[in-house]
Amino acid sequence: MTGLGLVSLVGAGPGHPDHLTQKAVRRLREADLVLYDALVDPSVLALAGRAEWVDVGKRAGRLQTSQTAIQQLLIEAGSKGRRVVRLKGGDPFVFGRGGEEALALQDAGIPFEVVPGVSSAIAAPALAGIPVTHRGVASAFVVVTTADKAVSTAVIDALPPGLVTVVAMMSMGSRASLAAQLLDRGWPAHTPAALLLGAATPRQWTWRGALSALALCEPPATSADAPGTIVVGAVAALDLSFVQGELSPIAVASSTARE
Amino acid sequence: MTGLGLVSLVGAGPGHPDHLTQKAVRRLREADLVLYDALVDPSVLALAGRAEWVDVGKRAGRLQTSQTAIQQLLIEAGSKGRRVVRLKGGDPFVFGRGGEEALALQDAGIPFEVVPGVSSAIAAPALAGIPVTHRGVASAFVVVTTADKAVSTAVIDALPPGLVTVVAMMSMGSRASLAAQLLDRGWPAHTPAALLLGAATPRQWTWRGALSALALCEPPATSADAPGTIVVGAVAALDLSFVQGELSPIAVASSTARE
Repeated sequence: MTGLGLVSLVGAGPGHPDHLTQKAVRRLREADLVLYDALVDPSVLALAGRAEWVDVGKRAGRLQTSQTAIQQLLIEAGSKGRRVVRLKGGDPFVFGRGGEEALALQDAGIPFEVVPGVSSAIAAPALAGIPVTHRGVASAFVVVTTADKAVSTAVIDALPPGLVTVVAMMSMGSRASLAAQLLDRGWPAHTPAALLLGAATPRQWTWRGALSALALCEPPATSADAPGTIVVGAVAALDLSFVQGELSPIAVASSTARE
Repeated sequence: MTGLGLVSLVGAGPGHPDHLTQKAVRRLREADLVLYDALVDPSVLALAGRAEWVDVGKRAGRLQTSQTAIQQLLIEAGSKGRRVVRLKGGDPFVFGRGGEEALALQDAGIPFEVVPGVSSAIAAPALAGIPVTHRGVASAFVVVTTADKAVSTAVIDALPPGLVTVVAMMSMGSRASLAAQLLDRGWPAHTPAALLLGAATPRQWTWRGALSALALCEPPATSADAPGTIVVGAVAALDLSFVQGELSPIAVASSTARE
């Protein structure tokens, strides 16, 4: 073995620790240091183990710690032989800046690995009963973020209305402009849409309605700075959720509700 | 509690049990009956527990059990109060026909749930060192399957070359026609591409090269009927993998290699 540590870029999944992978849990338990961000649900932090935990996340759009500083922390800890987990909501390679961190570690010669997580792009809809693909309804999906307005606009301009399911991540704050772009591109006003907040957490909140109403939906005040996942397309009319009232997605997402 | 059982539509992730979620493992251990398909790696089956395991997967393109028969099996077992896991490679709602099974269960009044898995659309590239999004390189991705040729062709026709990362699932057998379509649409011949087989299994095999060479790459004979994931776009030139030779993705994906 080398004196170098190992930095694991770990996807925490959409919220509840139920959706962590076995490898993610093992890396958390083995870690000396965990750097986590605001998209990681507090319930995941309860898995702490012996590690030192450092919050490097954004709060209300402001970075607590700059991206460069995060990368420097990872490199320093790795070079000191520490076992480090960089814990990110969802998957590290879906808008998680995991690629930048991996590149910095690679350039610095620090051993690292990527531990894929359950992406909210797919799981946030799924936990609300919406499949991103469904035979005869949608057999392709595109994942964008309105945080890159140029690309999300270009994608919407290019794709014929209804051809694929559109999943827009971290887009709650842009729901009005996103809806306007889609309507302008010719998506019918009655196209099903959904806005998903806090998937797999006790704050899970789902809005469903027509695309023309998306701009008007009012999330709870407590979710004002939630990133939010928006789904637009025929699949958003599906509601493949539990048939019994007491088996709500939240209840089943909780590790104790059914055991 | 009701006399009805619970049918869990569970995503097994890309291959190795390391990528199963905690909830997936718990559901497998609690299950009376597990219906699994060919995309689930044999190593996952070792988690068996006390359940009866039934292979309902495709072999060489032929269904062992028809989709209708699978749905009937799920409904019958659920209505007898059994705890059933329907185990699918990757995520149940990404080309997994999970939506159809959920709908059939909903119509039959059988309690069910969806347990999201790590999708191969994101994880197969990640485990080969390719992020589907990367700041300044790609800030959107589209997931298609050449199994729906009409839609995958329409998507490729619509999107300007290079605008998003293209992930084509279950598309190894169509790699030549997919490459031809992209080149015809104006994607440059030198566009980076990758073909990923058996992600997170001992048979993991990665090809990287220019889009113009994708048609010519020759997977090993043992992978002739692997579904395969194809990535096309600038991100496919990234190789964010381990800096130490001995820390290959396979070695680290194995639960015993590092412990």
